[in-house]
Amino acid sequence: MSRRNIVHAPRKAPSRRPSTREQLLETAGQVFSEKGFAGATGKEICERSGANAAAVVYHFGGMDKLYGAVVQEARRRLAPAEALSAAVERETDPKARLTAFIGLLVRALSGPASSTWAARLVSREIISPSAIFDKMRNKEMRVRAAILKSIVSELTGLPDDDPAVARSCINIMAPFGILLLIRPQRVERVFPVLSFGPESVQDTTRHMVQFALGGLAAIARDARG
Amino acid sequence: MSRRNIVHAPRKAPSRRPSTREQLLETAGQVFSEKGFAGATGKEICERSGANAAAVVYHFGGMDKLYGAVVQEARRRLAPAEALSAAVERETDPKARLTAFIGLLVRALSGPASSTWAARLVSREIISPSAIFDKMRNKEMRVRAAILKSIVSELTGLPDDDPAVARSCINIMAPFGILLLIRPQRVERVFPVLSFGPESVQDTTRHMVQFALGGLAAIARDARG
Repeated sequence: MSRRNIVHAPRKAPSRRPSTREQLLETAGQVFSEKGFAGATGKEICERSGANAAAVVYHFGGMDKLYGAVVQEARRRLAPAEALSAAVERETDPKARLTAFIGLLVRALSGPASSTWAARLVSREIISPSAIFDKMRNKEMRVRAAILKSIVSELTGLPDDDPAVARSCINIMAPFGILLLIRPQRVERVFPVLSFGPESVQDTTRHMVQFALGGLAAIARDARG
Repeated sequence: MSRRNIVHAPRKAPSRRPSTREQLLETAGQVFSEKGFAGATGKEICERSGANAAAVVYHFGGMDKLYGAVVQEARRRLAPAEALSAAVERETDPKARLTAFIGLLVRALSGPASSTWAARLVSREIISPSAIFDKMRNKEMRVRAAILKSIVSELTGLPDDDPAVARSCINIMAPFGILLLIRPQRVERVFPVLSFGPESVQDTTRHMVQFALGGLAAIARDARG
């Protein structure tokens, strides 16, 4: 890319240069996931993706915006709230809704994205959030929580602001959070009998749904007296 | 501390200087939890604890050993496997054993330690383990897993190497892992109806035990056909 292009090309033209932009996004994801937002430089990202030193500004408008785009891409690869919402809305029976919710999370963790920079970036951000991510994440977490709360509320008959509903949401979500954060390979070291590859999606989903339904039934019984 | 002391005092004399050693350990925990093992220097730790520049070598024998001592201290503050083992062994009924196991984890998370450097250090290490911690952690995780596996195996009637037992252990442990990793205050932002202070220990324990027992009963039923 020559300096002329940087000055004269329209700023929003990703369709004209898809491969450079995509390559930058991929490289930036890797660099940010290794070093965090504070530790990464535009220079390194451009060099590692073989792009001109001004490519970050040209394609994204700066490091902040590149980081925002990388976080969006990571979310897109790891079961975003919109996909959860769509999967759940296709079902009417609350058990089928819970199964759809859990199935999507299991598939996201079994896919290749969970072992790449997207999972590392999200893990890093969950532990020490940057300001950019913290805002996005809180919104994302609230949307997910709202979807799951409504399912749990239906299944237990408890109002969705009951503490038992919130605790049950944590029970259901936590295994996926842990598998995302400490990575399936390391869980497999502690439980060698388990695997989380694509071949295990059906068994894992079935188990997680059964355990959740049994747990929720017990919580509902306990609440009734 | 004068140079004379460094040269002539016996190396293992923590009882003669408890406050300097304890102060160093506390400061080191804070510095390591903020910067990681690679980012911390003995100079900063000594300066921040008001000790002589050679105090790390004098009291601990070097940075590696100081880090090992800090990790041990963090584990001691956060429900170590030995305490779990002791609490469980006092009970004979499997439900009481599960309640003892879960109760200890809930109390560890509700105590002040969970909001200090011990939790931050362990979180940091779980996400990107140092070689020192990785070895300790794998042993620790296997011991915890073995205790919980035996309880789950008793409660479900399944052999302790059944994948359903391993998955159930993840179901039961995961909420505590998540609360340790992302800190109760941030969970409370997503679920404002919850609190994880000392006043909530009883309710949280009861809920976690009920949910686990219900989940395990469902898994046992599913396994029987």
